[in-house]
Amino acid sequence: MTASLEVVSVQPTTDQLRYTFGGGDPLITVRPGTVVELATEDCFGGRVRSAEDLPSQVCEFPYLNPVTGPIAVEGAEPGDTLAVHLVEIAPARDWAVSATFPHFGALTATHNTAMLHDPLEEVVWVYEVDRQKGTCLFRPRKGGPEVELPLDPMHGTIGVAPAGGEVFASITPGAHGGNMDTPEMRAGTTAYFGVNVPGGHLSLGDGHCRQGEGEVCGTAVEAAMRTVVVVDLIKGGGPAWPRIESDDFLMSTGSTRPLEDAYRVSQHDLVTWAAELTGWDSLDAYQLVSQAGLAPAGNVVDTNYTMVAKLAKKYLGSSAIVADGVHDRLRETAAAYLAQR
Amino acid sequence: MTASLEVVSVQPTTDQLRYTFGGGDPLITVRPGTVVELATEDCFGGRVRSAEDLPSQVCEFPYLNPVTGPIAVEGAEPGDTLAVHLVEIAPARDWAVSATFPHFGALTATHNTAMLHDPLEEVVWVYEVDRQKGTCLFRPRKGGPEVELPLDPMHGTIGVAPAGGEVFASITPGAHGGNMDTPEMRAGTTAYFGVNVPGGHLSLGDGHCRQGEGEVCGTAVEAAMRTVVVVDLIKGGGPAWPRIESDDFLMSTGSTRPLEDAYRVSQHDLVTWAAELTGWDSLDAYQLVSQAGLAPAGNVVDTNYTMVAKLAKKYLGSSAIVADGVHDRLRETAAAYLAQR
Amino acid sequence: MTASLEVVSVQPTTDQLRYTFGGGDPLITVRPGTVVELATEDCFGGRVRSAEDLPSQVCEFPYLNPVTGPIAVEGAEPGDTLAVHLVEIAPARDWAVSATFPHFGALTATHNTAMLHDPLEEVVWVYEVDRQKGTCLFRPRKGGPEVELPLDPMHGTIGVAPAGGEVFASITPGAHGGNMDTPEMRAGTTAYFGVNVPGGHLSLGDGHCRQGEGEVCGTAVEAAMRTVVVVDLIKGGGPAWPRIESDDFLMSTGSTRPLEDAYRVSQHDLVTWAAELTGWDSLDAYQLVSQAGLAPAGNVVDTNYTMVAKLAKKYLGSSAIVADGVHDRLRETAAAYLAQR
Amino acid sequence: MTASLEVVSVQPTTDQLRYTFGGGDPLITVRPGTVVELATEDCFGGRVRSAEDLPSQVCEFPYLNPVTGPIAVEGAEPGDTLAVHLVEIAPARDWAVSATFPHFGALTATHNTAMLHDPLEEVVWVYEVDRQKGTCLFRPRKGGPEVELPLDPMHGTIGVAPAGGEVFASITPGAHGGNMDTPEMRAGTTAYFGVNVPGGHLSLGDGHCRQGEGEVCGTAVEAAMRTVVVVDLIKGGGPAWPRIESDDFLMSTGSTRPLEDAYRVSQHDLVTWAAELTGWDSLDAYQLVSQAGLAPAGNVVDTNYTMVAKLAKKYLGSSAIVADGVHDRLRETAAAYLAQR
Repeated sequence: MTASLEVVSVQPTTDQLRYTFGGGDPLITVRPGTVVELATEDCFGGRVRSAEDLPSQVCEFPYLNPVTGPIAVEGAEPGDTLAVHLVEIAPARDWAVSATFPHFGALTATHNTAMLHDPLEEVVWVYEVDRQKGTCLFRPRKGGPEVELPLDPMHGTIGVAPAGGEVFASITPGAHGGNMDTPEMRAGTTAYFGVNVPGGHLSLGDGHCRQGEGEVCGTAVEAAMRTVVVVDLIKGGGPAWPRIESDDFLMSTGSTRPLEDAYRVSQHDLVTWAAELTGWDSLDAYQLVSQAGLAPAGNVVDTNYTMVAKLAKKYLGSSAIVADGVHDRLRETAAAYLAQR
Repeated sequence: MTASLEVVSVQPTTDQLRYTFGGGDPLITVRPGTVVELATEDCFGGRVRSAEDLPSQVCEFPYLNPVTGPIAVEGAEPGDTLAVHLVEIAPARDWAVSATFPHFGALTATHNTAMLHDPLEEVVWVYEVDRQKGTCLFRPRKGGPEVELPLDPMHGTIGVAPAGGEVFASITPGAHGGNMDTPEMRAGTTAYFGVNVPGGHLSLGDGHCRQGEGEVCGTAVEAAMRTVVVVDLIKGGGPAWPRIESDDFLMSTGSTRPLEDAYRVSQHDLVTWAAELTGWDSLDAYQLVSQAGLAPAGNVVDTNYTMVAKLAKKYLGSSAIVADGVHDRLRETAAAYLAQR
Repeated sequence: MTASLEVVSVQPTTDQLRYTFGGGDPLITVRPGTVVELATEDCFGGRVRSAEDLPSQVCEFPYLNPVTGPIAVEGAEPGDTLAVHLVEIAPARDWAVSATFPHFGALTATHNTAMLHDPLEEVVWVYEVDRQKGTCLFRPRKGGPEVELPLDPMHGTIGVAPAGGEVFASITPGAHGGNMDTPEMRAGTTAYFGVNVPGGHLSLGDGHCRQGEGEVCGTAVEAAMRTVVVVDLIKGGGPAWPRIESDDFLMSTGSTRPLEDAYRVSQHDLVTWAAELTGWDSLDAYQLVSQAGLAPAGNVVDTNYTMVAKLAKKYLGSSAIVADGVHDRLRETAAAYLAQR
Repeated sequence: MTASLEVVSVQPTTDQLRYTFGGGDPLITVRPGTVVELATEDCFGGRVRSAEDLPSQVCEFPYLNPVTGPIAVEGAEPGDTLAVHLVEIAPARDWAVSATFPHFGALTATHNTAMLHDPLEEVVWVYEVDRQKGTCLFRPRKGGPEVELPLDPMHGTIGVAPAGGEVFASITPGAHGGNMDTPEMRAGTTAYFGVNVPGGHLSLGDGHCRQGEGEVCGTAVEAAMRTVVVVDLIKGGGPAWPRIESDDFLMSTGSTRPLEDAYRVSQHDLVTWAAELTGWDSLDAYQLVSQAGLAPAGNVVDTNYTMVAKLAKKYLGSSAIVADGVHDRLRETAAAYLAQR
């Protein structure tokens, strides 16, 4: 490892897990550019381990969806940008779980989409995780074919402390990030968050071995993770909503309701971002995004819904570089870390 | 061409273009399995040809979004399924257009999302279409980089006559299909529509050289098309909402408001469909789709919004075959047609 | 009755009932100012007569929600306004019914808010209607107090032929009116509809002995009615969405989804209308309506949702007169008719 | 004043004003049954005093919508019910203000309903408040009739600390109450809140001289208030969402998005509440509310939208008494206080 590569480890005890964004002291403070190796628990706090462990019985509100953090970043001030590069997201166990949860999910009555129906049956699925093969095994509970699904690990929940002194449950996504539950939050990407409080206060958790777009039943293939991130700071330029950059795509997120407003927020941000990067007028950027943009759902089950707006970087021309090329630089840091680990 | 391949041509005059689904006599009646070569006009009826042709001035309501058809299919009865295989969608001209239209689009006040704002500026973009290279050229109106975009032709509007004697403007998507504006409606796919009236009455139009998911500004790269389809009939099994099958994916659509309800409809249909094809219980199918399904937006600008629910066929096992393999069979018909044309 | 009072009667046979707005020839043509005595069937076509008559068994799609009409008005041209004064709405029988209907209502999964729940139980309630006392009697099916509710008769469904050749099921509300299901559509009010086709083609039905705002279970106290209206014509001035005037209030309606868009449409129309009547700038009208307007739900169960925006006429000043005082004039016609009947 | 009537006064300094629900120590702790005389500032913190004081210039985020409190109640534990009787709400000054605010309101693009429009013009209206006559005077800024509107004072913002350690900006309504902005929150009513933290932590503010339903432009006739409440405690029975009881009505609230979900929450709660009070089966209660319930909008402009579900108590029979008649008892306390003040 090069002398310049600072690596810290964050392995919270159960008592140190947090259940909100905002509202608590940082667990650790790091310098910009630090590589952070961290452990995250699954959304059930590791309490659902077999088909008999019904979440509504073994979990206790509000101790759901624990996050690891907050990680404060030295020098981060409101208006700045936290750049969080996801180096690696590795399932910590050889199993993972999913479940229906009473009155939670997109195809059931919920506390907000209130109806007179009884809840759907609460069912747990345990997945075998084969880290060598890179698969997780779906076993239907009532017969029919089993399916081997490729691992595509991601974090459902990642974000910073909200503005204005607000404190949100970790299950809520919003302008601060949080439980966006988008499969785009995978290793190799850089997420950008606007800083609202000194230090920014990054937290993450809710690892998924994989997840469909929308997370329709309300839970993914939930797993504890061993995750490595590089946390960097960009002075100024804090985006209003979380953004993601991969090698090939720029992505904007919007997390609100109804789902068309989440779509509007994400597309509006992508249009604005594309205009800034290229010099296009906003109507020209609106036109280009209309023809070349993608719009996958993040989640359609949480307290806010998330849409992602996605544009291939190749359509923006070679001069469209985000924050002086921070993504490429963090890619190099990640490569250096992985090479020397 | 083999003796068994029946090919007909439908080239409507301007007077023969239609502006609704339902409500008129068929333009032609074909036997199941017929290859239909047809011409479609663009959504502006070909009247927008330069940056000076503002749609709100050169087009006249309700003569917008013309469709070619209806094509009646012999023997089609309510409850049956029309299987429409898209063989080829070829831009008819070396140019295409897009535009902002007053109070239409996702990032503007509209007649339904009514506000006190004046409309955004009405602007037309003319694209050069290079059919040899397979590109269309985006030229920003107010400076900045030009972008060469790959052609990915599709039909924004395709569907059948609605149930219950209803007649919908061609700009409205719904359970009958219509203006779903999903880029998934490209050549190589088979679309399935539930038949509501004797003959089914297929119509299509609104060709796009390409389109982003959501069609955020309200219009795509609009083009007249030379399109070839195979129209087939499956007795019974009419789906409640349009479905699409490609070589690799099954797709369900939902077109309603708010956007989360369109998501619910599409995911509910995909879950139900997957359960039928595999024998899974519906909660098991719900679980699998939650982990492996995709959820791209169709349109978020029309009178109803469209979401697509999408699942790789490989995750359903080898016994999950739609309607005795009609898609593969129509693929062969298409290949035979193209080989012998 | 004065010589000038023209009175016609419209008593459709079962075969003459219609199930759409648009799409058929008028049942009768009248001169502007005509008093029309008409009979309407209940939303179940009179087939639900006891607790054993489950709607899903005795009714057949699409033969639901019959309307009486269309009544064409001589001289009505697109852009004009039909003014329909509701003189009297009288229950035709000494009973009325309500019901839950599978997958219909606001507190149940529906075909659009699609979920994996089985339908709620289908239950019929038969109300005793006492026209002398002016009450209808609610009898709970499973015990608890009975409730005598005051009659407040209204039409759930009233409107004209849509624009653009569209034909909508009578259960759909929209810019043409239709199944708005607002309790404000009671005797003593004048409804205004924009004319879309020559003659306008007024139809109405779906009488309710009374209805809560939102019609939460999906059906009101459904009754056949003997109804009297005066149908008048105002040249020009056709409103974009139906409006209602009572002695004390101006009301605008919006029928779309999501419900906030229905709210926006109705409030936008009321703001615009108030500005036109008073000479206020639109922001001043926006301000006044913000402080003095009412916003009751119409329906939150149909294919579109309806909101009503309501403003006391006394807040607009004495010079704010709609269409030269047509409401007061029709009030006088109604009084003359009732006095001489 | 009787010996048993405990009266305390809460007159916060500017520094003591709060901007969130949850997250701070109580300003005062009172015994159940205490009469609290309190002062509240207007939503602009008193900084908008003339047409030249544009809110976006004189106010600073997040110091908007200050509330007075929290008032802790001795013995209140999670699961209990705070009963807050509004005795008096009196405008503190002889003027009040309203305004459009950039990108806030129902008929404008907002941060969540994101669009490419510039904001509507920011305009301030100053109302003359005549407490003797009981009126406030609307003066249009650009001509047209002035309107004298009756005072109908209310609190837009009232609620308790949220559950789960969350802290919400005072502008957000939800299950904890908060910025519901319903004109039903007037003197003479009793509001019920579920207790989430020891002491409950009641706060209130955002007085309105009057407000239309929906608060369409985003602000009401905003005024500092001199308010008197009686704060009482009911052990257990904490409602999931705030409820309101007046002499004649029971009311349930729902604050979420989209607006139909707020409608569903409020109607679901009212149906459940009516069933509990009468012994009706939930489907019977669903039926009765469908025919007799009212559904006015609260706000359609805040971070969540609010609907109110409202049912006349006379329709529930004489045995339907909420919490042993706490409303009537608090009415008597209020009368005793007012008589002896």
